[in-house]
Amino acid sequence: MIIEFYKYQGTGNDFILIDDRENEFNIDDRGLISALCERRMGIGGDGLILLREHETLDFEMIYFNADGKQSSMCGNGGRCIIAFANLLEMVKTKTTFMAIDGEHKGKITEEAIALQMQDVSKIEGVGDGLVIDTGSPHYIEMVDDLEHLDVNKEGRRIRNSKEFKKEGINVNFVLDAAQLQMRTYERGVEGETLSCGTGVVATAIAMHYANCIEDNPVSIKTKGGELTVSFEEFNGTYRNIWLIGEASMVYAGEFEC
Amino acid sequence: MIIEFYKYQGTGNDFILIDDRENEFNIDDRGLISALCERRMGIGGDGLILLREHETLDFEMIYFNADGKQSSMCGNGGRCIIAFANLLEMVKTKTTFMAIDGEHKGKITEEAIALQMQDVSKIEGVGDGLVIDTGSPHYIEMVDDLEHLDVNKEGRRIRNSKEFKKEGINVNFVLDAAQLQMRTYERGVEGETLSCGTGVVATAIAMHYANCIEDNPVSIKTKGGELTVSFEEFNGTYRNIWLIGEASMVYAGEFEC
Repeated sequence: MIIEFYKYQGTGNDFILIDDRENEFNIDDRGLISALCERRMGIGGDGLILLREHETLDFEMIYFNADGKQSSMCGNGGRCIIAFANLLEMVKTKTTFMAIDGEHKGKITEEAIALQMQDVSKIEGVGDGLVIDTGSPHYIEMVDDLEHLDVNKEGRRIRNSKEFKKEGINVNFVLDAAQLQMRTYERGVEGETLSCGTGVVATAIAMHYANCIEDNPVSIKTKGGELTVSFEEFNGTYRNIWLIGEASMVYAGEFEC
Repeated sequence: MIIEFYKYQGTGNDFILIDDRENEFNIDDRGLISALCERRMGIGGDGLILLREHETLDFEMIYFNADGKQSSMCGNGGRCIIAFANLLEMVKTKTTFMAIDGEHKGKITEEAIALQMQDVSKIEGVGDGLVIDTGSPHYIEMVDDLEHLDVNKEGRRIRNSKEFKKEGINVNFVLDAAQLQMRTYERGVEGETLSCGTGVVATAIAMHYANCIEDNPVSIKTKGGELTVSFEEFNGTYRNIWLIGEASMVYAGEFEC
């Protein structure tokens, strides 16, 4: 069987996207998914995303990590699938779609793709940081020297600490400078990635919660590029949260399986 | 302009192959080539290879490293372009083509792609190893514990030593076990790769020269898979050298530039 795919990237997170409206892709074939995501023998990607039909919404997003397992919400992947639905002429400038953590809205402009995230009301202090779930669980800690930080070592230490070992957590280190900057250690990848969409959202909320920022929307610099987060806050609950930035197709291809 | 490409791999070395018989690809656009070889924002590959027409032979191979620079001969890339010429129906079971180090012959069977390499007559002892040029320069050293060797650290040390610093060299570490095994540090990449075709050839010759092997053909295990080398030796000159192993298309695609 020949499968057509599209390679997208958003601030350095890259994904294999497949139009699976015919439900032909075997989502239980973890071996195939991880082989496709492998970077030398396969296509390569941080994850694989299926676009499927949904009964009431524009489409459904089914997200797999590079290890072949279905995973929690992916913010940059969510922005890429909005751009993909636009390419397929399923949506124009607005969309509502289903993902693993519920409904999401999306907006498409020439400059950027915006993804609405779930509301956040639970923010916990753990050790020196804050823990926030933005579709995926995140730990956020401020640091003085982001550039020279050993993100793999420190991230791995926190992710494997007693509090987080069982479920795992993504670890975000933030520098509060003229522009907020961050680096992320991702569970599942078990290493630093160029950018993490849900981590950027968690970081923006944490920085607002800790009274470190007043800007809204706030721009945050990741290793793979800049993302913007806007939100409304009332009594410690964050609503109408949007993750905004570029997301683009790199190329289209087909493989035989 | 839409450019069609094909992604091939041979024992874990992966390449972007382009049918450029119309001479449309700008070989001076180093920025484009390195952007295409980048693994997250681009297509991803150890290198990019153009197939062009040749006046007298079946085709010409023009090879670029992932940094966008034209480079010395690539053995696995050479095997991939033979498979590609077969896909394009330019050749059937045999071919002769031009590469940067001269003419090469190729053979295609269902199981493997074989590439003939240039003759080798100059073998030098340097420090604890041997230096052999098989289209690219190689240093070969035997080790007792290949599995736990820090190939990046040791390879970098040798590559940057006084003897090799200026031109650079590829560093191959070899374990003489029931089956020969090797790991390679590649200049240009400046790190370990899964497999290196010219390095496998250099290693086979070095091991024969040092009287460590009698087998011919000899099979060598790399991190990306197994390769076989056959040769004829007379009075210290190695002739009719062939590098043999799998090489296959992973997918076809197109990008806009």
